[in-house]
Formats: sequence, C-alpha cells, structure tokens
Amino acid sequence: MGTQIKALLKLATQRKTVREFKRAIPSVENIEEVLNTVCQAPSGSNMQPWRFMVIDDPKLKTGIRQAAEIGEKAFHEKLSEEKKNKYQTMGVSWQKPMLEQAPILIAVLSDRNSPNSKPSVWLAVGYLVLGLEAVGLGSVTYTPSDYKKVQAVLEVPDEFKLETILPIGYSNDSKVKGYRKPLEEVTYRNRWGEPLKR
Amino acid sequence: MGTQIKALLKLATQRKTVREFKRAIPSVENIEEVLNTVCQAPSGSNMQPWRFMVIDDPKLKTGIRQAAEIGEKAFHEKLSEEKKNKYQTMGVSWQKPMLEQAPILIAVLSDRNSPNSKPSVWLAVGYLVLGLEAVGLGSVTYTPSDYKKVQAVLEVPDEFKLETILPIGYSNDSKVKGYRKPLEEVTYRNRWGEPLKR
Repeated sequence: MGTQIKALLKLATQRKTVREFKRAIPSVENIEEVLNTVCQAPSGSNMQPWRFMVIDDPKLKTGIRQAAEIGEKAFHEKLSEEKKNKYQTMGVSWQKPMLEQAPILIAVLSDRNSPNSKPSVWLAVGYLVLGLEAVGLGSVTYTPSDYKKVQAVLEVPDEFKLETILPIGYSNDSKVKGYRKPLEEVTYRNRWGEPLKR
Repeated sequence: MGTQIKALLKLATQRKTVREFKRAIPSVENIEEVLNTVCQAPSGSNMQPWRFMVIDDPKLKTGIRQAAEIGEKAFHEKLSEEKKNKYQTMGVSWQKPMLEQAPILIAVLSDRNSPNSKPSVWLAVGYLVLGLEAVGLGSVTYTPSDYKKVQAVLEVPDEFKLETILPIGYSNDSKVKGYRKPLEEVTYRNRWGEPLKR
C-alpha cells in the first residue's frame, strides 16, 4: 500500500463524528490550514461556490442554537410515533446544545448562482471533515431541518444558501465510531450485484 | 504545521482534474484501497447511502458515453448564444470521449430512501477524489445533464439515483490545476465580509 493512501485511510478511519466538545479553543492557524486545504477541492466549472463562516461569538452561537431548535422541534412534532421512537433510540432529539457548547461553529454556504453548487460544496465538506481530523479537531455536519431560520440569524446575502453548520472543537465525546458496512455491500463491478473481485 | 494536515494539504494541492487518460489499467487493489477509505465517511444517520459501480467493460463504457452525449447535446442546443460561447471558451462541448477512453469509470449512486442522501454521497465523493489522487489516479466528477438516460444503461434499482460518474486512470492531461481564490475571498468571521484574522 502506498504512503499517501495509507495515510489517508488512517485519517479517514480514525475520524468519528463528535457532538461533545472540550472548552479548549482551536487556534485560528489550525482553522486556516484546514480551510486552505478545503479550497483546493474541485467544483463545477471551478466556480468554488463555497463560503465559510467561522463563528466564535457566543451570542451568535446562542442565536443559531435557538433558531435551529425551533426548526427541529417542529420537525420532531410532525414525526410518526414509529419514527419518533427510532430517533429516540438513536439518541436524537430536537435539542442541539452542541451549537452553543462547541467553541467554534463553521457555517458552510453555497452560491445559488453557480452550476451544481450543492454537490460541489458537499464534496468540499468531505475535505473539511478530513482536514479537521488532521489537526485533531472533532466535528459533525449538522444540517438544520429549517435552514432558513438559521440562515436569517447569519444575515448572509440571499444568493447564498446555508448547507450545513459544523460544531467543531477537541473531542469530549466517548461514543465510538459507527459501524461501517463491508465494501462488498456497496461496491459492484459492471453490473448491479456483481462483486468487484471475480 | 502538523504531519497529518501537511500531508492532506499536499494531497489536496497536488490533485487537479484529469480528463485525458493513459491506457494503463489501474489495479483492482488500488480501487479497493480507495473505496475502503471512502466508506469511512460520515453520512446522515450513518445510513451509508452510497453505492459504487466500478466499470471496466468496454461495451458498457461506450453505452454510457452514448447515453450521456444525447443528454449533453440536448443541453447544449438549449443554451443561449452567450452561454454557448462561454462553454466553448472553457473547452466544454457535448462530447464526452473520456467516458469511453478512461480505463475505468466509477458510477456513484445514492439511496433515495436515506435522509440527506445527496449531501452524504457528495461528501463521500470528496473522500473519493482525494483517495484516487493518493494512489496516483486522476479523475473528474462528471455529472450528466440527463442522468436518467445514463442510469438506464446501468440498470440499477429505481430507489438509487445516479449522482456522478468519475472517469479514472493515470493522467495524460497536460492542463494545469485551475486557479483557486485566496482564502480571504471565501472565509469570514462571525459576520459576512469580516476577515478571519483581525
């Protein structure tokens, strides 16, 4: 196995989703290193339709949490009993304390006027979560149920759309990494269901 | 700068989009290493809604190219003269020889029944393009203008949606990496337009 893929596999494998954070504040230099990496990503017509808002203002974080929770509460109330129970089992509720407790949030926005902006921005989010892991920072991609409410708090131009907010910081989350399906379950060769290796 | 972020920044920086390929065939082992890395990505409710079809059957590649070009031709014919000229300047036409000439195509599909499947799959595509670079393989994320035509050739179950096809192989593309905006243009702190560093 080559050096570069070995390092990348290690990075990807060691990364797990983090929703609980220590109080220690990540350095701006680390954030810069990560975002410089992210900005190397490809995008539709190379439009680089991403914008990143690094948020460490406590009042703003509280406002984001409140706006997000209004949307989550409405979403959870509309769920069927079956789905409600399913979310409960998964430990998911309408409450999003991580939006206030993480020392930093990174809001990721897409330019609505760029072609394929949503795919391009999410591809870059793949770079972002790997980059954060590479500087020892935990993260989770939180996608608001009602993004407009949260976007209103951010006061961004209308031509940009809030795609996700990542609470980031040093992990204080004891949860282990989630189960991953074996490659055979998700990879085929030439025809649906055919194994990669014959 | 830490070792891991330095390595990731190097990988991300060295990667450029590749549309012309050598005839040499990438090994299945390399493809496996890359896809094992990709499968470590996070996803909505950890549903891992991605499927990968590794395509090296020449007839299937030709069929994919033909289906894709029908969609691209229709798309290009509908363009305004201004946009037509713009695409011409960028060297983009309805023709997609790379879909036939690349030794391998990787079709990436999303499970329509999973929550947030499109964002999750595109995040994983970020892992994928980095992984391919890490084993020395060039790629481009081709998104068909009319994905249904291409999907029909692949004969996949209806609950899956074709998101993108990546022609992959060893680069024979002399084009340099596209210009990247400086970080200041795309990153703000707390408020739109405020610089990250004060």
